[in-house]
Amino acid sequence: MIDVNDPQLTSWVKVPENSDFPIQNLPFGIFSTADRTKRVGVAIGDQIVDLKVLHVLGYLENLPFVLEDFDSPTLNRMMARGKQATRELRARLSKLLRSDRPDLRDKEHHAGQALVAQAEAAMHMPVEVGDYTDFYSSEDHARNVGKMFRDPDNALLPNWKHMPVGYHGRASSIVVSGTPIKRPQGQLKPADDAPPVFGASRLLDFELEMAFITYPGKPMGESISTAEAEDYIFGLVLFNDWSARDIQKWEYVPLGPFLGKNFGSSVSPWVVTLDALAPYRVAGPVQDPAVLPYLAYEGDSHYDVQLAVDIIPPAGQAQRVCDSNLRHMYWNMRQQLAHQTVGGCNLRGGDMLASGTISGPEPGSFGSMLEISWRGTKPVAMPDGTERKFILDGDTVRMTGHAQRPGAARIGFGEVSSRIDPA
Amino acid sequence: MIDVNDPQLTSWVKVPENSDFPIQNLPFGIFSTADRTKRVGVAIGDQIVDLKVLHVLGYLENLPFVLEDFDSPTLNRMMARGKQATRELRARLSKLLRSDRPDLRDKEHHAGQALVAQAEAAMHMPVEVGDYTDFYSSEDHARNVGKMFRDPDNALLPNWKHMPVGYHGRASSIVVSGTPIKRPQGQLKPADDAPPVFGASRLLDFELEMAFITYPGKPMGESISTAEAEDYIFGLVLFNDWSARDIQKWEYVPLGPFLGKNFGSSVSPWVVTLDALAPYRVAGPVQDPAVLPYLAYEGDSHYDVQLAVDIIPPAGQAQRVCDSNLRHMYWNMRQQLAHQTVGGCNLRGGDMLASGTISGPEPGSFGSMLEISWRGTKPVAMPDGTERKFILDGDTVRMTGHAQRPGAARIGFGEVSSRIDPA
Repeated sequence: MIDVNDPQLTSWVKVPENSDFPIQNLPFGIFSTADRTKRVGVAIGDQIVDLKVLHVLGYLENLPFVLEDFDSPTLNRMMARGKQATRELRARLSKLLRSDRPDLRDKEHHAGQALVAQAEAAMHMPVEVGDYTDFYSSEDHARNVGKMFRDPDNALLPNWKHMPVGYHGRASSIVVSGTPIKRPQGQLKPADDAPPVFGASRLLDFELEMAFITYPGKPMGESISTAEAEDYIFGLVLFNDWSARDIQKWEYVPLGPFLGKNFGSSVSPWVVTLDALAPYRVAGPVQDPAVLPYLAYEGDSHYDVQLAVDIIPPAGQAQRVCDSNLRHMYWNMRQQLAHQTVGGCNLRGGDMLASGTISGPEPGSFGSMLEISWRGTKPVAMPDGTERKFILDGDTVRMTGHAQRPGAARIGFGEVSSRIDPA
Repeated sequence: MIDVNDPQLTSWVKVPENSDFPIQNLPFGIFSTADRTKRVGVAIGDQIVDLKVLHVLGYLENLPFVLEDFDSPTLNRMMARGKQATRELRARLSKLLRSDRPDLRDKEHHAGQALVAQAEAAMHMPVEVGDYTDFYSSEDHARNVGKMFRDPDNALLPNWKHMPVGYHGRASSIVVSGTPIKRPQGQLKPADDAPPVFGASRLLDFELEMAFITYPGKPMGESISTAEAEDYIFGLVLFNDWSARDIQKWEYVPLGPFLGKNFGSSVSPWVVTLDALAPYRVAGPVQDPAVLPYLAYEGDSHYDVQLAVDIIPPAGQAQRVCDSNLRHMYWNMRQQLAHQTVGGCNLRGGDMLASGTISGPEPGSFGSMLEISWRGTKPVAMPDGTERKFILDGDTVRMTGHAQRPGAARIGFGEVSSRIDPA
């Protein structure tokens, strides 16, 4: 059996050099065009394979899917078929798209119907998010925040190395890349000794994160072990956890972030499967103190995904402000999922679990303006001569990610890119 | 036009004395029987009116609903028609059920098809919850917690009187009354100077709350004012926010409750409309310091709903442990909804916003075992000779609520009643 991640594979669909979407990737998303309603597609090169069309034409026969799984405004129906089914589907698509397979390649009329140029399609939220969790799993990020706001010598809180700390966030306001985000208004407390005031956030920030999307889980009352966790993970997207630092600071004690975060989060449209990332597994950090048994795991369970953030002023030139990597996580996805479910909390298909800000150890790898500008004390110089401590109206924040190493195909995530509109 | 809340109205359907569901209530829920799939029903006396049947038989003509709005496993479709539509529907049902109206009363064959005994029906989650918010809006509860865990002389945190503090909770694990809840396991930290241990929660608690359920709201980026808020509130249910105090204590700094709450929350099945509660509006407390303008409101916006909690041991006698009232809230629903949306967070139909523990000023009115037993220092004596500091395996916690005053019909909520199963 051919390994669908084999770097030697090529497709008869033209794939530009350094494309995020070679035949080894095949990420899933929801697209529409002027004449096609929202449906499931798979990216290859700068094209989209329309799975509804493929199903209608009979190319997905003997797979455990019905037409409605693809003729659907979200991936939830398709994912509900489970990991084995989506894995078989990806293998079928790989086969259909391979250079040496004539089935679809030589049926030009069919190929023409099945392929849509990405430039002609609109992308939509890939899933209906049941519940959204945001973790806080990068040690460098947690240390940076602790140093700034608490005790520099005891930057990590006592629970941080014992569990992947997280909270449930707002699902309704997660939007796809390209959707503008309006600067939120809310309560601010600029002076310690004066009452709060109402106004637009002055400290609007991004957080560079990735989020994983789940298959349906177990019933309530049961838990998912670290050994089982990957069976419940469909894939990953880039995730911008927009944060209003001033709103958050005044509201968050004792129940956590609320209006500081719930005005919007942005995701990239293409869900890269965990299977496609298999060549990029790496070992995580040694965890000391040792974790409780339910958080222990075996095997390389972190992923080497290079991440970058650019700020693009209106009609201006992009400034790279962060180069980070998903491998910097202290807690991995298996541990996050095991922790979240260990008390019996049930998981649904389409749940989204985000990593928390992914910062590395060096200043150039910090994943938020809070850290990059160190609370505004170290502004970033922009190519147009202005500077940034936080994000200004009209700025676009673009996050990109890809995995690359010798002996494996380059796999990319596309981008999540959103402009901030005035309050 | 007849006021559907007129206490003089009676129904040709027999309503037992002191029933929670007289003709002035008409709460909505989702029921099924051996021969009827999940669908929308309305409670009257000890019967359920099957709205699917009423629609098929033509009794709901000239109302802005289609059959699928009632032939649905949740109320979301029906609610999506908006407040004016559900208000007209409730008026139509009142007319059909009134003693003096022969339309349905005298068509015995139709009435027989449309009415189902509650004793023969199973009740289900009334809505698919998009997002769930838990507020913290009872001053007595917040003061009690502050006295126990923080500074008795400064029990309220600085932000508490400036905003209805809240957080986003877990939607997937909200279940209907009657669903057993398994005692959660998780990380506990019994000793300050020893590492955490893994085990079943020893401090399992209820929280007496009510939750309101919303109509679809405005698009993201817009807010709902206190003046508009009631247009987006469909109705209320009783809400038990199960809490594992030991898990919560170790995990909640800095991002709020996570596993301490996400193992389950329980709701009563009948949604009592805000319209039915109109006779029970009361003034709220004077808010000092004055709130910011976006939280100001006019008119009586609190509700006088009497609430009670009983603990029922396995095969034992019930012990009343709390008599409280929804009027004890410091922040009302209009303020909660205005606050949650002021930064542009969008609302969906079926969102659930819970009050937070509803405690009154007297010890007998405290809404959680944490407060009732004052951190376990004042155990409750049970009729069987045992005592309770927190909830034991096999205990059932039952919450009930009703509104009653001279010159208005008594309106009840039924109950939310759930047994704790061992971990």
